[in-house]
Amino acid sequence: MNILITAGGTSEKIDDVRHLTNHATGSLGKEIATLLQSEEQVTIHYVYGPQAVLPEGNSIHFYPIRSVKELEQQMKELLTTLSFDYVIHSMAVSDYEVETATNEALLAKELAKAITTKQGTTQEQIELIIQETLKQESRTGEPTQKKISSASEKLILVMKKAPKVITSIKKWQPSVSLIGFKLLVDVPEEELVTVAQKSLETNQADFILANDLIDITPTQHLGLLVTKDGVKARFQTKKEIAQGLKELILERKDDL
Amino acid sequence: MNILITAGGTSEKIDDVRHLTNHATGSLGKEIATLLQSEEQVTIHYVYGPQAVLPEGNSIHFYPIRSVKELEQQMKELLTTLSFDYVIHSMAVSDYEVETATNEALLAKELAKAITTKQGTTQEQIELIIQETLKQESRTGEPTQKKISSASEKLILVMKKAPKVITSIKKWQPSVSLIGFKLLVDVPEEELVTVAQKSLETNQADFILANDLIDITPTQHLGLLVTKDGVKARFQTKKEIAQGLKELILERKDDL
Repeated sequence: MNILITAGGTSEKIDDVRHLTNHATGSLGKEIATLLQSEEQVTIHYVYGPQAVLPEGNSIHFYPIRSVKELEQQMKELLTTLSFDYVIHSMAVSDYEVETATNEALLAKELAKAITTKQGTTQEQIELIIQETLKQESRTGEPTQKKISSASEKLILVMKKAPKVITSIKKWQPSVSLIGFKLLVDVPEEELVTVAQKSLETNQADFILANDLIDITPTQHLGLLVTKDGVKARFQTKKEIAQGLKELILERKDDL
Repeated sequence: MNILITAGGTSEKIDDVRHLTNHATGSLGKEIATLLQSEEQVTIHYVYGPQAVLPEGNSIHFYPIRSVKELEQQMKELLTTLSFDYVIHSMAVSDYEVETATNEALLAKELAKAITTKQGTTQEQIELIIQETLKQESRTGEPTQKKISSASEKLILVMKKAPKVITSIKKWQPSVSLIGFKLLVDVPEEELVTVAQKSLETNQADFILANDLIDITPTQHLGLLVTKDGVKARFQTKKEIAQGLKELILERKDDL
C-alpha cells in the first residue's frame, strides 16, 4: 500500500535573505507517518517543508520542498508516475506567492501613470483604475533582487494567488483517496464544518480533517473528520488523529 | 566576563499562520558561543530567534525572541540591568515589520479617496499624493486579523521600518564593546568594506564582521573583520571566525 503524506509548511522566497513562511511544525504529519510506517504492507512517500520535524522509518521516502511551486512539481511527478492508495495532505500551503517587492515611490509612479493615461475623473473611476493596475501581473518593482535595499520607508510586497495544489491531486490521479486538512482560527464549529464541506467539494476530497488553531496546544489537538454527511469522528490529540486515520485507511472503517 | 550573543533570524507575524522570516540558521552564533563558553571566566547570555540551532554549555543563559520588537525589549532589559564586556550581534534582524495586510480593493479605495480629496491634476501631483498616502502610518486594512482571507486576488503587505536595534546598543550601555555583522549579497569586496565601515560609524560599533551570502556554503564562510582602519583579519570558515573573535575578546589582540 502506497501512501503520500505532506507535512510542515511552505516558504516563499522574497529575496535571498527574506522568506514568507507558513508556520507549521509538521508534528501531526510525523505522528501519522510514524504510526503508519510500522505496518508491514505500507510504503510512505513523505513530502515536507523546511523546518518540519521528520518521522523515522525504513519504509519512508523523503522529498523536501520549499515553495508552493516546488510542492506542485513534486506532487505532480509522484502522482503521475506512482500509484497511491491515499494522499494525506496535512501541509500548511501558502495561498499566495510573491509577485513583486516594491516601495512607496515606485508604486506611486506606476499608479499615477495609469491614472493620468486613462484620464479618470470621478473617485469611482480612479478607484477602478488603481484596482485594475494593482491586479496586473507585470509591474515596476524589484522581483528578482538579491537582497532588497532597506533604504525606502515602506517595503510593499504584492503577492498573487499561488496554485491550489490540493485541487489538482484528483486530476493527476483520479483513483486515489484524498484526505485534506482545513485550519481555521477561532470560528464556531458549525462554520468549521461548513468550510470543510466546501473544501471536500471543490477539491474532490474524500475526507477533510478540520481543526481550529485555538484548539491546538502542546498537549491537545482537537480535530473533526468531516465527510459530505457531516462529522464522522472527533479526536482530542495528534495521537488520536493519527490512530483514527490509520483505522480509516487500513481497516477501511466507514463508521469510526 | 559577560558576553551577549545574538543569533538566528527574526520572524515577523503577518497573521496567526503566516510569518515573514529572515533566513538564518544561527550556526555561526552557535560556533562562537561554543568556543567562548569553554573558557572559565566567561558567562554567555544568548538571545536567539525561532529555529536557531543552539549551543550547549552550563555557562549559557538563553533568551528566545521572535520579532524585532521582542528583540529590542530583550536587549534593552539585558543591557540596562547587567554589565557586559562584549555584544556579538550576529542575528539576522528584519529591516521591516508588518504594518498592514490589505488587498487591491481596499488599497484602491484608500488611494482614490486621497486623490479626489486633494484634487491633484498633473501626473506629478497624483504621484506625490499616492506616495504620501502610502507613507502614512494608519491605513485601511486588516492589521490584527486572525487569518487573512484568501478570497482576494492580491495580498498586499505594507511593511514599515523596524527599529534599528544595533543603533541602540551603545545608548543602552556606552561602555560595552560591540561586534556587529553585515551580510550583503554578491558585491565586490570594496563595497562590502565600505558598507561595513558606514555601519561602524552609524552604530558606534567597534568591529564589523562583514560577509557575503555567495561566500557562505556548508563548508566555507568567508568573513572580513572590519574596523575604521580597514580589514583587520580574514577568515575562511565559521570555526576560523569563532576562533578569531575569541582571540580578539580574550587576548585583546589588536592585530590579529
